[in-house]
This record gives sequence, C-alpha cells and structure tokens, in this order.
Amino acid sequence: MVEKQISRETVYSGKIVTLYRDEVTLPNGRTTVREVCSHPGAVAVLAVDKGDMLFVRQYRYAHGAELLEVPAGKLEKDEKPQAAAARELREETGFQCSELVPMGVICPSPGILSEVIHLYFARGLRFVGEHLDEDEFVSTVRIPLATFWEMMLHGEITDAKTICAVTMARARGLL
Amino acid sequence: MVEKQISRETVYSGKIVTLYRDEVTLPNGRTTVREVCSHPGAVAVLAVDKGDMLFVRQYRYAHGAELLEVPAGKLEKDEKPQAAAARELREETGFQCSELVPMGVICPSPGILSEVIHLYFARGLRFVGEHLDEDEFVSTVRIPLATFWEMMLHGEITDAKTICAVTMARARGLL
Repeated sequence: MVEKQISRETVYSGKIVTLYRDEVTLPNGRTTVREVCSHPGAVAVLAVDKGDMLFVRQYRYAHGAELLEVPAGKLEKDEKPQAAAARELREETGFQCSELVPMGVICPSPGILSEVIHLYFARGLRFVGEHLDEDEFVSTVRIPLATFWEMMLHGEITDAKTICAVTMARARGLL
Repeated sequence: MVEKQISRETVYSGKIVTLYRDEVTLPNGRTTVREVCSHPGAVAVLAVDKGDMLFVRQYRYAHGAELLEVPAGKLEKDEKPQAAAARELREETGFQCSELVPMGVICPSPGILSEVIHLYFARGLRFVGEHLDEDEFVSTVRIPLATFWEMMLHGEITDAKTICAVTMARARGLL
C-alpha cells in the first residue's frame, strides 16, 4: 500500500514545521498530491507527585483557548527524547525527576503531520524552582488521579497526548 | 494568558491545511511569531461489531508507514460532524450504523495545528458493501476488545485519536 514520492516542493520552512507539497504515486498507479507538515518530534511527560498529576495550563494560539496538558515540547536539534522530557518537565513545572519510564510513542495527526510524540512517566519528583523560560506562559495545575476521568468526560481535558499518556500509564500499571 | 494577533500572513492554502504565519503579542507585551496549520476539523468513529472493534489499516505518507486507526476523516465543507462520522464509517469499512453516540472532542496537536477531532461511538452496525472511494486504500481490520490494550502496549497501535476513542468509550461505559 506504499505511496511513492515523485517530487517534493518545500512550501514553507518555519520555526516549528516545514511544509512540503509532494506529488506521489498511489498503489493503483494514479498520482495525487500529499501535503506534509514535517515536525521534529516531541515529548510529553506524565509526572505524579503525592497523588496528583502535574499538568500545565497554557494558552494555545491555534485553538484560541487555554488547554490543560501534561508537560510537553518539541525536540531540540540533536536532542534525545529522554533529555527533552527531563528538560520540559523542569522548564514547565519546576520539578526534576530521578527516573523517566518510556511509555512508547504516539502519532497525533498522521494524515497531515509527521510529528511523533515520545511519552514518559516521571518518578522521584523533586521541586527545584519555578519554570525557566520567561516567554513561556504556563501555570502548573495539580490534578488528583481520581478527578482526571471526570474532567475528561466533561470536556475539561481535550488534549490527545494527555489522554494517551494517562491511558498508557494506567495500562502499564504505573498509576 | 491570551496572545493577541497583530498580523497574519497566509503562507500556503492547500488541499487540507492552510498555513498561517502570525505575529502576536504575548502576555508580557513582547511579540513573537506563531505558525498555525489551520485544519477544517475531523471525525473519528469507534465501531464495535460482534465483540470486535472495526479499525482500518492504511499507509500514512507523513510517517512512511501503515497505521492501524479507527475510521476517520476530515469534515467536508459545511458538513456536520455526525454526518461526517456516518460517511467515513461507510466509506472506509462498508458498515452503516443506526446510532452515533458523541464522545466529545480532542485536540491532536494544539501547539501547531488547529484541528479538532469529534469522537463518536457507533451502534447498530450493518454491513452494506465495500468501501467507496477508489483512491483511498484502506483495509478493515477486526480487533477484539481484549487484544487492543496488548497491541497498544506493544506499539502496534500508535494513533492518538484511536487510543483516545477507546479510552473515552471505556470511561463512558460503552465498552
């Protein structure tokens, strides 16, 4: 079922995504156009401290709204996912962790976006200071495990990676 | 924590996404650039027939791999999410349903993508014929409920909307 690239046009090369417009051959021999938002990849971290999950609330410009999410961010150049997970947890919540358990990867929007998100579960948390990036406006919100599912059912948590991270942790017996 | 738009440049207007490059004011008064992949929205349908979930396997060009996903697709112009859900289920699996239970929405990649996916649970399934779109190469795969979690833990199911749809259905007592 493979689609073969015939040609590639770089439409835009930006801060986060590069947009390609490719001509491809379909399995039936016809040709079509595929638009790909190429993304460097990301990490997301589920951290539990004293029975609470550490989420962040931040304004998401693409949605024009504040969302509640697990700490997350994109990979920096040449950065390993595990290092990125520790860095994002520290930057966004002020917590360090002694262990990061890999929980697999997810594809958030495979029809258009090449992004892969590496999920981690953080153990051994220690608060070391407020978040670092002064141009990043995030506030930490403690969500008790017991209230997460109710919040999800009421539409208060809509972020896909956050729902996946909690689901993965539960399926792995980490929660 | 709102970010205010100062200016908008349409970088690319494509088949699925429109890419904007906006200049915005941050809460601290500084300015920055936000790239937004504007997406019309999508639907995803969890359908269970005789104890099996009906998934589709398809080649995802953005990942260069085949993925296992719930039937899904983007909203057509002026199309209601519920109508799109029935249409995508029919087109991708050949099944019609007598009821679609709304399970809320998810945001697959809120840092860059405006896409919102409406999740549905399909009841009363009836097979009415093979899938319709001859340029869409999808094959239906029946996944027993009991094997889903093992497949997810082994990295055989990585699609975020699929994991979210099954999680939502379980949390709502639909599975």
